[in-house]
Amino acid sequence: MRTIAVIGSSQANAEEYAVAYQLGKELARLGLTVVCGGRTGVMEAVCKGAKEEGGLTVGIMPSYDGHEANPYVDLKINTGMNWNRNPIVVASGEMVVAIGGSYGTLSEIAYALILGKLVLGYKTHPVEGVEHLDSLDEIIKRVKNFYGVKA
Amino acid sequence: MRTIAVIGSSQANAEEYAVAYQLGKELARLGLTVVCGGRTGVMEAVCKGAKEEGGLTVGIMPSYDGHEANPYVDLKINTGMNWNRNPIVVASGEMVVAIGGSYGTLSEIAYALILGKLVLGYKTHPVEGVEHLDSLDEIIKRVKNFYGVKA
Amino acid sequence: MRTIAVIGSSQANAEEYAVAYQLGKELARLGLTVVCGGRTGVMEAVCKGAKEEGGLTVGIMPSYDGHEANPYVDLKINTGMNWNRNPIVVASGEMVVAIGGSYGTLSEIAYALILGKLVLGYKTHPVEGVEHLDSLDEIIKRVKNFYGVKA
Amino acid sequence: MRTIAVIGSSQANAEEYAVAYQLGKELARLGLTVVCGGRTGVMEAVCKGAKEEGGLTVGIMPSYDGHEANPYVDLKINTGMNWNRNPIVVASGEMVVAIGGSYGTLSEIAYALILGKLVLGYKTHPVEGVEHLDSLDEIIKRVKNFYGVKA
Repeated sequence: MRTIAVIGSSQANAEEYAVAYQLGKELARLGLTVVCGGRTGVMEAVCKGAKEEGGLTVGIMPSYDGHEANPYVDLKINTGMNWNRNPIVVASGEMVVAIGGSYGTLSEIAYALILGKLVLGYKTHPVEGVEHLDSLDEIIKRVKNFYGVKA
Repeated sequence: MRTIAVIGSSQANAEEYAVAYQLGKELARLGLTVVCGGRTGVMEAVCKGAKEEGGLTVGIMPSYDGHEANPYVDLKINTGMNWNRNPIVVASGEMVVAIGGSYGTLSEIAYALILGKLVLGYKTHPVEGVEHLDSLDEIIKRVKNFYGVKA
Repeated sequence: MRTIAVIGSSQANAEEYAVAYQLGKELARLGLTVVCGGRTGVMEAVCKGAKEEGGLTVGIMPSYDGHEANPYVDLKINTGMNWNRNPIVVASGEMVVAIGGSYGTLSEIAYALILGKLVLGYKTHPVEGVEHLDSLDEIIKRVKNFYGVKA
Repeated sequence: MRTIAVIGSSQANAEEYAVAYQLGKELARLGLTVVCGGRTGVMEAVCKGAKEEGGLTVGIMPSYDGHEANPYVDLKINTGMNWNRNPIVVASGEMVVAIGGSYGTLSEIAYALILGKLVLGYKTHPVEGVEHLDSLDEIIKRVKNFYGVKA
């Protein structure tokens, strides 16, 4: 099973939500399992898109019972660790895409870079080491390249 | 998606391995996703059985990269937390089955009971609160009952 | 600085409270820093005793802000990890004393034994590997022996 | 007991080391307990300074046994969680000072801001929400102000 972590704000704006939703569709078509923080905003959007294309979605949940999962999470990994579950999200994806995001996303970007992961960023924190891209098309192209899928 | 956590020794004896393997087969036939610690012994056996029946297997890994996963783990959740990942295993199953096991398993049983989960035990630690059963048949019957499957 | 972890129920009965309180006094007199889960019951009693003899007390707290600390905790280590903070308690003591206790204590005993620590038990879970003792005097004697203090 | 978290690179350059060392001295004179990641670089420097002025130093250690602690750590809190111990460092300080730093420090800054802590930065990541200051004097002044100490 091949995995990708998608991170971003739990309070995404309309554009971030739309991009994450489209990204989810594309990732599912590529056969990738989407790992995320399981909540609202970008996390919900990418899960929604992935489910509509028959993909598998995983939420690394802050609580012990996963009650806060968005409705498009298939598998809830319940940590009970609140925000301390963030490193697990990025460690469980072979690479990472960040869309927008606040301090939670920043912590995840930091952990992804600690772990030496490729991180693609769309309108996210201007952190050195992130590969910042300006469009969904570019992200998809780079993701395909990473997983060895022909364009 | 319905989940079940299976815990037990990483150094299972032949009988524990055989029981866990058969259990994995049955759980997959019931459509349950198996969550475990992802390593050897009981964890490997239950994943092997589940895979042979087309089930989905999840390993909550001690490391950041999941290199220690047994070959039958589909999805590696990489925690980087060593043994501290144990509570996540049991929190991510709707109920828990314990087969044999040493101190790691004991910590998982304790966390499962803290969280109020049903724990079935087969030749495991004599902890009050665990429902101890003497055969695989009884375990399967009790699991089916829990998930509302007709015998 | 030499440390000792004291674990036990957050809902100690009168006898457990009294034993933990006396133990705290003795540990402080020996110059040991007491590490515990920072909450009520046995944790409160051992901190209270230790403070009355001028000892240093450390609480490994479940929350991010330590609001649940008992009044006798000097240093609050705030984890935000709820019960998942249990392994940190025992890993931070050179040895462990368990007094009574429910499933939380059982998880801590299990982690202490995983880590190869000496665990003394007073009316606690009948776990193999724990050195069960019947009186405070015996516990103190064994603790002194561990830390190389002459009786 | 009043606490302050100091974060920064494990591979500090000479200037960062000198600033952290002087900061440690000042913090100890103010009676503050220094909480850090317990390792080399900025963490070592701040502990060294604090110890020379009789302060108390706490290291939140990545390992289960704290073998990697610098020689100036008084109290080792052993987590066994590798980099996942980072949020505990900042949650355990009433406020945070960041000196230089790489991705580990970035993750700690992010967590401190998630938790609503005051974060002072000296030549560190240009994160919005951090109060960036250009000299040790300014940092000390701001710290005194935070803890209600008259200049």
